[in-house]
Amino acid sequence: MKRTLNPIPYPLYPKHHCGVFGIYGHKDAARLCYLGLFALQHRGEESCGIAVSDGKNVQCHKGMGLVGDVFDETRISALSGDIAMGHVRYSTAGSSILKNAQPILVDYSRGALAIAHNGNLVNASLLRDELEAHGSIFQTTSDSEIIIHLMARPKFKNLEDALLDSLMMLKGAFTLVMMTQDTLVGARDPWGFRPLSLGKIGKSWVLASETCALDLIQADFEREVEAGEIIMIDKHGIKSFKPFERYKPRKRSCIFELIYFARPDSFVFGENVHSFRQKLGMKLAQEHPIEADIVVAVPDSGNSAALGFSRASGIPFEIGIIRNHYIGRTFIQPSQYIRDFKARVKLNPIKEVLDGKRIVLVDDSIVRGTTMRARVANLRKLGAKEVHLRVSCPPHLSPCFYGIDFPTKNELIASSHSVAEIRKFLGVDSLGYLSIDGLLSCAIGDRNDYCISCFCGEYPIEPPEGTTKYAMEKGYAK
Amino acid sequence: MKRTLNPIPYPLYPKHHCGVFGIYGHKDAARLCYLGLFALQHRGEESCGIAVSDGKNVQCHKGMGLVGDVFDETRISALSGDIAMGHVRYSTAGSSILKNAQPILVDYSRGALAIAHNGNLVNASLLRDELEAHGSIFQTTSDSEIIIHLMARPKFKNLEDALLDSLMMLKGAFTLVMMTQDTLVGARDPWGFRPLSLGKIGKSWVLASETCALDLIQADFEREVEAGEIIMIDKHGIKSFKPFERYKPRKRSCIFELIYFARPDSFVFGENVHSFRQKLGMKLAQEHPIEADIVVAVPDSGNSAALGFSRASGIPFEIGIIRNHYIGRTFIQPSQYIRDFKARVKLNPIKEVLDGKRIVLVDDSIVRGTTMRARVANLRKLGAKEVHLRVSCPPHLSPCFYGIDFPTKNELIASSHSVAEIRKFLGVDSLGYLSIDGLLSCAIGDRNDYCISCFCGEYPIEPPEGTTKYAMEKGYAK
Amino acid sequence: MKRTLNPIPYPLYPKHHCGVFGIYGHKDAARLCYLGLFALQHRGEESCGIAVSDGKNVQCHKGMGLVGDVFDETRISALSGDIAMGHVRYSTAGSSILKNAQPILVDYSRGALAIAHNGNLVNASLLRDELEAHGSIFQTTSDSEIIIHLMARPKFKNLEDALLDSLMMLKGAFTLVMMTQDTLVGARDPWGFRPLSLGKIGKSWVLASETCALDLIQADFEREVEAGEIIMIDKHGIKSFKPFERYKPRKRSCIFELIYFARPDSFVFGENVHSFRQKLGMKLAQEHPIEADIVVAVPDSGNSAALGFSRASGIPFEIGIIRNHYIGRTFIQPSQYIRDFKARVKLNPIKEVLDGKRIVLVDDSIVRGTTMRARVANLRKLGAKEVHLRVSCPPHLSPCFYGIDFPTKNELIASSHSVAEIRKFLGVDSLGYLSIDGLLSCAIGDRNDYCISCFCGEYPIEPPEGTTKYAMEKGYAK
Amino acid sequence: MKRTLNPIPYPLYPKHHCGVFGIYGHKDAARLCYLGLFALQHRGEESCGIAVSDGKNVQCHKGMGLVGDVFDETRISALSGDIAMGHVRYSTAGSSILKNAQPILVDYSRGALAIAHNGNLVNASLLRDELEAHGSIFQTTSDSEIIIHLMARPKFKNLEDALLDSLMMLKGAFTLVMMTQDTLVGARDPWGFRPLSLGKIGKSWVLASETCALDLIQADFEREVEAGEIIMIDKHGIKSFKPFERYKPRKRSCIFELIYFARPDSFVFGENVHSFRQKLGMKLAQEHPIEADIVVAVPDSGNSAALGFSRASGIPFEIGIIRNHYIGRTFIQPSQYIRDFKARVKLNPIKEVLDGKRIVLVDDSIVRGTTMRARVANLRKLGAKEVHLRVSCPPHLSPCFYGIDFPTKNELIASSHSVAEIRKFLGVDSLGYLSIDGLLSCAIGDRNDYCISCFCGEYPIEPPEGTTKYAMEKGYAK
Repeated sequence: MKRTLNPIPYPLYPKHHCGVFGIYGHKDAARLCYLGLFALQHRGEESCGIAVSDGKNVQCHKGMGLVGDVFDETRISALSGDIAMGHVRYSTAGSSILKNAQPILVDYSRGALAIAHNGNLVNASLLRDELEAHGSIFQTTSDSEIIIHLMARPKFKNLEDALLDSLMMLKGAFTLVMMTQDTLVGARDPWGFRPLSLGKIGKSWVLASETCALDLIQADFEREVEAGEIIMIDKHGIKSFKPFERYKPRKRSCIFELIYFARPDSFVFGENVHSFRQKLGMKLAQEHPIEADIVVAVPDSGNSAALGFSRASGIPFEIGIIRNHYIGRTFIQPSQYIRDFKARVKLNPIKEVLDGKRIVLVDDSIVRGTTMRARVANLRKLGAKEVHLRVSCPPHLSPCFYGIDFPTKNELIASSHSVAEIRKFLGVDSLGYLSIDGLLSCAIGDRNDYCISCFCGEYPIEPPEGTTKYAMEKGYAK
Repeated sequence: MKRTLNPIPYPLYPKHHCGVFGIYGHKDAARLCYLGLFALQHRGEESCGIAVSDGKNVQCHKGMGLVGDVFDETRISALSGDIAMGHVRYSTAGSSILKNAQPILVDYSRGALAIAHNGNLVNASLLRDELEAHGSIFQTTSDSEIIIHLMARPKFKNLEDALLDSLMMLKGAFTLVMMTQDTLVGARDPWGFRPLSLGKIGKSWVLASETCALDLIQADFEREVEAGEIIMIDKHGIKSFKPFERYKPRKRSCIFELIYFARPDSFVFGENVHSFRQKLGMKLAQEHPIEADIVVAVPDSGNSAALGFSRASGIPFEIGIIRNHYIGRTFIQPSQYIRDFKARVKLNPIKEVLDGKRIVLVDDSIVRGTTMRARVANLRKLGAKEVHLRVSCPPHLSPCFYGIDFPTKNELIASSHSVAEIRKFLGVDSLGYLSIDGLLSCAIGDRNDYCISCFCGEYPIEPPEGTTKYAMEKGYAK
Repeated sequence: MKRTLNPIPYPLYPKHHCGVFGIYGHKDAARLCYLGLFALQHRGEESCGIAVSDGKNVQCHKGMGLVGDVFDETRISALSGDIAMGHVRYSTAGSSILKNAQPILVDYSRGALAIAHNGNLVNASLLRDELEAHGSIFQTTSDSEIIIHLMARPKFKNLEDALLDSLMMLKGAFTLVMMTQDTLVGARDPWGFRPLSLGKIGKSWVLASETCALDLIQADFEREVEAGEIIMIDKHGIKSFKPFERYKPRKRSCIFELIYFARPDSFVFGENVHSFRQKLGMKLAQEHPIEADIVVAVPDSGNSAALGFSRASGIPFEIGIIRNHYIGRTFIQPSQYIRDFKARVKLNPIKEVLDGKRIVLVDDSIVRGTTMRARVANLRKLGAKEVHLRVSCPPHLSPCFYGIDFPTKNELIASSHSVAEIRKFLGVDSLGYLSIDGLLSCAIGDRNDYCISCFCGEYPIEPPEGTTKYAMEKGYAK
Repeated sequence: MKRTLNPIPYPLYPKHHCGVFGIYGHKDAARLCYLGLFALQHRGEESCGIAVSDGKNVQCHKGMGLVGDVFDETRISALSGDIAMGHVRYSTAGSSILKNAQPILVDYSRGALAIAHNGNLVNASLLRDELEAHGSIFQTTSDSEIIIHLMARPKFKNLEDALLDSLMMLKGAFTLVMMTQDTLVGARDPWGFRPLSLGKIGKSWVLASETCALDLIQADFEREVEAGEIIMIDKHGIKSFKPFERYKPRKRSCIFELIYFARPDSFVFGENVHSFRQKLGMKLAQEHPIEADIVVAVPDSGNSAALGFSRASGIPFEIGIIRNHYIGRTFIQPSQYIRDFKARVKLNPIKEVLDGKRIVLVDDSIVRGTTMRARVANLRKLGAKEVHLRVSCPPHLSPCFYGIDFPTKNELIASSHSVAEIRKFLGVDSLGYLSIDGLLSCAIGDRNDYCISCFCGEYPIEPPEGTTKYAMEKGYAK
């Protein structure tokens, strides 16, 4: 019999998408961390937290909600110290509870240790069972607690030792920021699924999931932390370790970060996100040309690609749909009910712009298709003569096991319907998805450097033996 | 000696900008009102409220904060009845208190009366003094309470009587929605400063400050309520009164609603706001042509005009600045401190787009200029070769007495500096404001149909005798 | 058709019980007011508020809940000024809403005016109808707003004038504290239903419903404000008016204040409340002697009388029932459900004390009888051999129209049952109520100085013509 | 270097006083647990929590504040299951944080485990260091987490095994309630410092710190859990283990539970608390007789002893001081500032009772003496002719290491002053403390069955080697 800590019967190891931030050696560390998390808010809206060290004591504050709600001047002022790290978190409903918020702060034999994690471990269940068999107790359902338990094993002689040995036991996606009383750590898994950047503000080192967080605090971008690289920063300076190199791992950056998740002003996996998306739109215009009067984006997700489509096709770009600024992103709302409601209030088309026009409508993805269908119907009601939908990525066929919370397989419309069927379902005059080849041709890196498993169903890391796909999709093994 | 009800020493009659909504004869009246206010949220973020009548009892709930914060499912469900009206409010700091939130609901000789008001009365102080002299007591500092007291005078034989007589005593801007147990009222002042639209959903009549609220609840737009028109809706149907006609008042719609305040997807004063702004951008390109590589909008306020500028000039439109979706509008934040902070976190330029480019930067207005100066410096830091600023309205010279909360005169940079001085202050290579003639040439109506007093300093309604300009600017008379 | 401002269909003029406090000329006026209200908390737990004047501006803060919840250091510090007044309020459920909280603060022709009221006007409905007919508008359902409207009538030349004329129009119970920018006012109706005391702390004058509030702030008790006396305190000192004297009104102090409502450490209507209750217990022992082993109080309401009973009878006083300190008073909980629940958790009898004993159980009143019945059954279960109930007041036959919120007539067990029937219902071996004569013989004043209408059904002020008893009982006239 | 998880630099292992409750096999388990905690609220006001199991899943809700604030109908309804346990907690300021609230719920190799703890382990620091050395990580600073880690060690074959072995490693005071998916556990340390009772309601077993919790839910008292007894309740019934018997431990029940901490209606350590306190008062009258007019209790702490003193001396018992019911217990307020404030508002003496009298004032303890000094001065101000203070326990000389949060040694007035000096400091005419012999002569058990270390400075369990008294007093070792 398996049991859960959660009141709501939900996956034991929920997938989550998150953002991390760290800063070393700045007298206003917590405040800059706060601002950094603010810039990373799009990576997780449900909970957030900041841990800070003054060299002796490590303290932590976290809460449910947006960064601006959880922290105020009083809270930030109380977090004194010159090393800080933070986390924003999105997770599925069942585990949207405070105790799963991060950073997690613990005491172990070497002192205090705080950890914040973006990603999803494939072997979490195996590791947890083994740790429990050796006496570990777990107070949360997050993967991060597993990493701490691994590091707390008594056999290590110092932090470096514990860190390298423990991280090498992990399979899956992890971008980590950690902190002890006197050290800041950043790490990316050897596949490099999730991004992590290194910056500098004065003499202080900064780590952030995306460069937009560096921009906000006016830090200079130094470089991306490499796939498989572990960075330790303390009073002796910065050290880099690459313990995975002996295994010659294959880099697999999540291309969906570029397509959808990252902010367009960020520099991720070697290129600017907006420019990449603009290239996708241009490619899309080549792959699926059409005669039309205007190109209209689904704002703001389709803006960059729509501009690219317009530029490549010569069809004028128009603002035909207005976004209500009081709404968050549809994608990361926990329940179906709220998603539908918000879709209705989020965007409003302009009749005067659309009436009598042949429209190329551009967006960055289609997940279930229900929202888009409602949207298309609305455009027609307002007088659109034709609606040609162009999607700046290939059809989503498979779930992600590395940290993006797609719906399960049977909710993904493209996993069970042909493009023709989807076109009909959506009620559009034509439908064009970008091809996998087209997508990869726009990327700066080698085409094998990217994880495209959600488009092709082939996974760079196999789940552990005995784990069925179905179980994985449900979110737990065995 | 004059005294105030407010803890903070502030103008007795604060200017405010607001949105109003009303619906008659729908079983889900409060819920639709909630959605309508949601769509009008940009017109006032500080407080909101809904009043509802079931034909016998009128009840009201209001609170500080956004519509989504003040109301939840429980609240809305408790507001049963088929007539509802609501209000969103922005006001200066001193009166950001709950008791000034609207609607105001009272009991008087004819029963319950609820009122919501968008605008600013020029003769509020005189009316209030006179009412107090006759025994009226005031519990708020809002103009709306004055209107109720006028209507409660014992001499009237019915609601229509009270309404027409009382509204004809008002000088200034008022767009009103009112409600009794069984009647919904909508009214616009004879100058027509603020917009009000009439819509229909099934057999239910709807009133809303802007048509975007009609769109959200899928109501059909019928027509705009005319300047000086008073509409009463009850079980006998809809009646229209035009009591001001004998005075042949001159229409003076606030052109700043079109330039800045209204949502681009709304239809206001006879035209779509986005399309109007696009025309402003095209005109601007004619009046202030320049050679450059890209046109970049300050998002989202400059989007429409930038697109127009690009189209007229042939210079490519680019997305060069990204907006953080977790921030509200800078314009309507109460304190200088917060404004500066939010300006920093709100927009982030993209180095990869801007580096080495000659940029036409387009925005819809410049108030103090400090935020823009910081923005321009940032563009240059990221490598912009030239920055040419184009503003889609004329310089702001004078305060507004009819409901827009501009800063006082000495905060308006254009009231004390020439365009050349402003150009130097902002650090741009060239600066072009749209001319008053250019502005008016884009509007659909006669050029005399618009109030342009903030650009020219001439006011369609003179303040009452003995009132100095200075006092008006401070927000009170005498 | 009559309509109401209340969402819940409830009496238009709810009865309430309240406490008032005022202080003139102290630099820490609001803080002392806060402490005074704290000491008066037992007079009203549902809402509270403080108004303060710095000589120019009057401000007010109020909220739902206990004094300690509504005010904190920040709130109190913000209430600067040297005149302050406050109010604690209990009311029936329907009107437990913030807008009925007091003080009410308004602006009228002579400036700001704040009012706090303890009592219940018998002619409230008539006055309100008349005021509305003359153009008054009402934002609350409280009697206090009526008084303000009366004072705002334009015919008066100064505050004194307005005050005396207006208060003389009122019929019913009113103990008032009022405040303008520069004057503090205290008033008691000519019947003197509710108490009001005058104290002094240094050179500052203090008004309080009960002397326990003076004790807490270490003010000296000067004297009680007399029935029908109006006191005005300003920079010229203190003035007393007795405008009702010409009518030679009969004093009618509410004897239930002494029996039940006031705190035992207060000095009310000329005597200490605890000592009075002890005399009741002694008288009760004479009227209803019994042979028993121990005298046990229902704590804390029966403590004083039980001690008196023990002293007069020679039967040892014992602590046989323990009170849970985390519970408020049963009497002033709004709903039947909560009352029952709280009765269960409030008191716990001690088996070791009661087992095998013949018990005299003493309490100060029986209202419905249901709680007492449960209590008696519990005593028997724990081994009590005999239970003899002694009640230190006569049976309650009739509702109160002057400010005590008894249940309606058919909820009062004594209004429809004989003592023998009640004894049987409660399951006690004997039951003795104090007689009306016995009660009045304990009081210091003339027996005609007290209102005993709830015991005898004869009311000192007749309700206005056309008002049926039934309507009064429901809480409104006509 | 030692580090802490706490933001505020405070003892690593704070002393706390707490209450625990458990129930097995009742469909309304959580609700009864809620009521039980309500009755135990006096044992801890700062945080509380309830864990519940439905046989498969264990869930937990906890929060800062009183039981009535943390739980509402919705919360309780959501806690479905037929096994429940709960905790109320008081602790020193530094650790008044949510994460130290209990129960603690974890996942380990045998499933879910929840624990609630009343007491203080003397060897907590040693155990924690050792556990950390073997790889344990700690997320709180509470002793309870240590117990869980001990039980999670991999060597055990079942719960019983883990439980007996782990509890035998503990030194110090522990009364525990624990829960797995299907088992409820109760345990008392072999010294029996803290109380724990076993009750039954229908077929459901109940565990509670004090019997007043059994009374409230109408459970029958079965017996006290014995010192050193461990009880396991599951579907097979109830089992009792006495693993400590082989060591023949000496029982040492905390006599201060009887003197001060437990509720007077509880049955603790073989007798009723009120009756015990009454005996103390009688003994006190023998040891320190005096001629006086009245005996007055400091309510409610001195009530029982004062009644005993009155009975033994023949001097009449009087109610001379009234307690404000809106205040909690002074003893368990975290800060000096609040303590002083609350002392002023908590009690009010009655002048009419005290004036001109020779008073015997009775209380249950004197800690710092400052509050009592203020109280005595007040009595004199109101006219008391003589004040003779009688304290129903011996002088406090030493801190408690077993779970009572006394102030540190130099705050205890009796640790540095003679009785004569204290008498002078307090300003009383005479002062009598009960002797240790007198105290023990009142108890039902053998005089060696009680821990009196706070009175005599001799501790039944020696702190571990290397631990100085000073360090212990500070709350941590090494």
